Parts: sequence; structure tokens; C-alpha cells
Amino acid sequence: MAISLRKARSIIRKALEKGREMELKPLSVVVLDAGGHVIAFEREDGAAPGRFAIAHGKAYGSVMLGMAGTAQMQRAEAQAYFMAAVNGVYGGQVVPVPGGVLLRDRKGEVIGAVGVTGDTSDNDAIAAMTGIESAGLTGEA
Amino acid sequence: MAISLRKARSIIRKALEKGREMELKPLSVVVLDAGGHVIAFEREDGAAPGRFAIAHGKAYGSVMLGMAGTAQMQRAEAQAYFMAAVNGVYGGQVVPVPGGVLLRDRKGEVIGAVGVTGDTSDNDAIAAMTGIESAGLTGEA
Amino acid sequence: MAISLRKARSIIRKALEKGREMELKPLSVVVLDAGGHVIAFEREDGAAPGRFAIAHGKAYGSVMLGMAGTAQMQRAEAQAYFMAAVNGVYGGQVVPVPGGVLLRDRKGEVIGAVGVTGDTSDNDAIAAMTGIESAGLTGEA
Amino acid sequence: MAISLRKARSIIRKALEKGREMELKPLSVVVLDAGGHVIAFEREDGAAPGRFAIAHGKAYGSVMLGMAGTAQMQRAEAQAYFMAAVNGVYGGQVVPVPGGVLLRDRKGEVIGAVGVTGDTSDNDAIAAMTGIESAGLTGEA
Repeated sequence: MAISLRKARSIIRKALEKGREMELKPLSVVVLDAGGHVIAFEREDGAAPGRFAIAHGKAYGSVMLGMAGTAQMQRAEAQAYFMAAVNGVYGGQVVPVPGGVLLRDRKGEVIGAVGVTGDTSDNDAIAAMTGIESAGLTGEA
Repeated sequence: MAISLRKARSIIRKALEKGREMELKPLSVVVLDAGGHVIAFEREDGAAPGRFAIAHGKAYGSVMLGMAGTAQMQRAEAQAYFMAAVNGVYGGQVVPVPGGVLLRDRKGEVIGAVGVTGDTSDNDAIAAMTGIESAGLTGEA
Repeated sequence: MAISLRKARSIIRKALEKGREMELKPLSVVVLDAGGHVIAFEREDGAAPGRFAIAHGKAYGSVMLGMAGTAQMQRAEAQAYFMAAVNGVYGGQVVPVPGGVLLRDRKGEVIGAVGVTGDTSDNDAIAAMTGIESAGLTGEA
Repeated sequence: MAISLRKARSIIRKALEKGREMELKPLSVVVLDAGGHVIAFEREDGAAPGRFAIAHGKAYGSVMLGMAGTAQMQRAEAQAYFMAAVNGVYGGQVVPVPGGVLLRDRKGEVIGAVGVTGDTSDNDAIAAMTGIESAGLTGEA
């Protein structure tokens, strides 16, 4: 199952709505496909200009490793040089913290990932999960 | 004048509508701010996975050089090694063809750029211009 | 509000004057715009040749993350692998220590950043803040 | 003989004055030392944001090769793949067109370079030469 642009838009809108409901700082949200390629992205007014790269890095690492942000963070804390090496092989494009969420279909296969940045990593992950669930998909934070 | 996320969404939707109306191949559209940073991006279902980088490269070169895609293409055709060198200094992120359109405010100052890719470069530019004008902004293709 | 070249020159001169008044080592000062692009830079006689990259890295990270040098340093000390990953996505151009100062307009919006290097990070930050305030702007160190 | 910051400032101011006198587009001017490292840079209001990289690329190639912009351009036109290869070894930082001017001392030794960008390459070179000569130095365009 591929994530349609319609689904990606829905994930982004619902994640941004959750951010406003929680009174978070302005958020940026990216949705990647199963190959780690960008389907859609939005950066809220007032967010820092470089937010695309952070959102992308959270989601990209999730897809490429098949491991969500929380698990990546645990690995980084246990073995920092391993995640540094991972970043080497992926061209420095991995940001291993919560807010990177894997998207799975009903069979449990990875069909993409969502990356959210702007507030604390934990709040970013909550907004991502809300967006994903509101769109009828299953996330792994 | 900064481009709001609301304006960026409007540009993207209208560009995609124009593409469907003209029966173009699936399009991808990015909107960058005045510093060349991504505000929003959408890739239509059926587009090739790598379209973000092409759309981004058309818009990014436009902002960084203050020169839209058509003018960049003319320079590339007249002096290929110059545009190759320009790409070197900008990390290989410039795609010097039509479909990269500068956004200007009423005073004529550059406030960002739009990049469209998916069909011929000329059709990409038509879709971009339509999106921009439908959103009440002025484009330079 | 954009930072004019006149304002940028004023910030640099006043920061360098503060350095001489405090008898600091030779300083280098960069002023970036709201998109992280260089407006002006000066390196004092006697400074090491590579100072542009350090000054730039302090200011660039501040703009891209919307977070000044002191806050970046705190994050780097709490979660070193996160700032390493941030550096990956920004092409290794972030130097997360004091001396990177955000420039804000009266509404509190980020309009650019100043980066100072040459002496201790704390003294660099003092020189930056003095330059910014002498030019009638508000800094966040 | 090293180029002092005072001299570098003088070169930049005089080059910018020449640009205004000739009614050129907004210019950006960089001065590099004998090692190819930045001493000073200024970008005039209204210039495109990415002008630092172009100015730097013109001056950097001049210093690294000991060959000014005009000679680099001739080589690029005669043997494009050679200048492409040169760009490979210098990390893509060379822009081989007029506007990159070598600075020589009275013995003829290279002591740095000036890079100007914003108008046509030929006009850029005129502004650079005027700045250099007004500062009492000898340039090679």
C-alpha cells in the first residue's frame, strides 16, 4: 500500500492541528514514502527556516533503518559512534530522536515515515502520532 | 512581505489543478521563502520518487541567483561551464531550466520562488505561473 | 525588517571596537540575513586564516535552528549526538557555542544573526551583543 | 606583504562606489588573503542572497590557481573538462569568469584576490579593478 498525496496532506493537517491544540511552537511536518522520498511537507509560519532538514532527517532515518525515532535515540545513547557511522553512510541525513515515526500498513509493512519538528522531541512525536492515527494509519514512534 | 503557509498551499493547489486541466503528467511543486528554504511541497501520485530534488533545484537556483529558470537556461546554453561552476558553489542544488519561477512583491523584491517538475519544462512553468497568479502574486518565469 | 548593509557594517565596527576596548584577541565578525546568507564579514589583522568558517558556523546554526549559541551549547552538552546529527543535515556548517547571536526585530521575529570568534566564546558573545545594541537592534545570545 | 583589513575595506568601498557610478546592479565584493581565506565581504542591499558564494568562487579560484578570472575563462572555453576537474579538486568552489582579480605586491607576488559579482562579468571586473587601484594596489583581471 502506497501513501497517497491525499493521505499525506491529511496527516500533515491533523499533526498541525494537534500542535495548535497543545499550544506547541510552530511545527514542520514531512511525509516520506517507503523509499524515503518526500511526498509532502509543510512549515508553519514562525518556524525557523531550517526546519525542513530536521523534519526530513527524523523521517529519513526511520525509513532507511526501519527503526523509529525513539529506538534510534536509545541506540544513539547506548552507542553514539554507531549512529554517527550510520549518518556517514546516509550522507549525514539522519536525526535520531523522537518525532520520526514509521508508518505501517495492516500487515505491519513499512510504507513510509512522518517527521515532525518544532517543539520538544516528545511533543513532536505526539503531534506526528495524532496526525497518523487521524488519517486512519498506524504509527510507530 | 513573507509568503505564508496559506499562500504556499494555495500556489501548490492551483498549480496542480492547472496540470490536471492541461492533462500533464503528475506534477511536483515546491514553494521556497526569500532565503531559499522550503515552506511547502507536494508530489502527485504517480510522479517519480526523486521529484523533490528537481522541483527544489529549479526554485533554489532562482532564489540564490535572483534569476528565474528561463534566464538560467539561457546562461547555461551560452556558457555551460559557468552554470556548472555555479552548481559547485551551491552544492549541486541548482537545476537551471524553466519551471523555476521567482516570486516578487509589489515593490519588485524577491520574496521566494516556486519550482514545478513532472512534464516538459515549459509546461511546468505554465503550471507554476498559474498557481502563482491564482494566489494573487506576481511570478517571473 | 531586513538588515541593511549599513546596519551590518555598524554591528561589525562596534563589535570590533568592543574587542579592542576589552583587549581581546583579534576578532572576526559575520552578519547573516534571515535566510542564513552572508551580508558582511570582517577579520581583524592577526586573526587565524580560518576564522570565517567559525564565525559563519556560529551565526548559521542560530538562524537555521532559531536558537542562539548559548542554547545550542546547552543542547549539545545534554545530547551531543543530536547536535552532531543537526550538523549532518546542515552540511557541517553549525558551531554550537556562544558567539552566535540571534537578531530580532521589535515584534520578536528573527531577522538574522551575528557570529563572533577569536577570543573565549563568552567574550565573543559580549562583543557581538555590544555591536548589536550599539546599532539599535536586539540580540539573543 | 599581507593585505590589512583596512586595505580590504578600502577595496570594497571603492568597488561599490564604482558600481554606483556606473549604475550597475547591486554588487557583492570579497577580499581573500594569499591563502585564499576571507578577510572581508560586503553584499549591497537588493543583491540576491547567494552572492557570497559567487564572489568567493571568483576570488578563490584566482588565488588557488594563481590565475585571474579572464585567464580561467579562456581555459574553460578551450578545455571545459579541465576547469570541471579543477573544481573537483577544490571542492566545487571555483567560478572561472571575469570578476576574479589577483592582487600582487610590487615584486609581482600574489598577496590575495578580489571577487566581484552582481552585474555582467566584465562590469564586475571593472569595479574590482577600480577598487584595487584606488587602494594603491595592483590587480590582474
